[in-house]
Amino acid sequence: MTHLLVVAHGSRREDSNREIRELIEKLRLMTTRFAAIDCVFLEIAEPTIAQGLHQQIAQGAQQIVVMPYFLSAGRHVSIDIPEQVQRIRDIHPQIDIRIANHLGAAEKIRGIVLDLASLAI
Amino acid sequence: MTHLLVVAHGSRREDSNREIRELIEKLRLMTTRFAAIDCVFLEIAEPTIAQGLHQQIAQGAQQIVVMPYFLSAGRHVSIDIPEQVQRIRDIHPQIDIRIANHLGAAEKIRGIVLDLASLAI
Repeated sequence: MTHLLVVAHGSRREDSNREIRELIEKLRLMTTRFAAIDCVFLEIAEPTIAQGLHQQIAQGAQQIVVMPYFLSAGRHVSIDIPEQVQRIRDIHPQIDIRIANHLGAAEKIRGIVLDLASLAI
Repeated sequence: MTHLLVVAHGSRREDSNREIRELIEKLRLMTTRFAAIDCVFLEIAEPTIAQGLHQQIAQGAQQIVVMPYFLSAGRHVSIDIPEQVQRIRDIHPQIDIRIANHLGAAEKIRGIVLDLASLAI
């Protein structure tokens, strides 16, 4: 039973946070590979990473993939998210919590940039 | 002669800004559809949107596609970038400057999230 937790930055604009929640609803329709797919926010909005991980563990998750929904491997991706995940690993050492590559690491992003730009011509 | 200008947020971490510049170098190798592909930064880093647009216009661009490299349609995408672009349109009304959809609007992003998450299992 692998659960997926998508981590977005979190915004003061509720519209931006809603975009992430809508993304999650679409992901749930696209795959049955994960027993659950949820989103959490690094800052500003809730649920937090800790809340999301605790909830998935309470639901019986044995393995959790944390997926940073960030374009850049900045401080949030390289330090903040790993630190917050490690705190939960320390509390629940029996749960296998892994951090996936951040979104911006995907080579396919390049093709999407060119597709969107070409559509504007 | 259409030029492409990718707008990223800009970071205090020079590594993050370098990621964007490396993305641009890869895009240049992927397509000949645009006479030039450059990047600019909304905040913190340079060149700015105005600098990038002025430079492409000086290079002979007749049409410029501005592509917001942002995941969320927040204030930066909905207000800040259009305002900065409009100022240059007002100075150069003969240049056709268009704003593409922001990166997060692409449906293909969803598949990339699931691909990256699956790779972590």
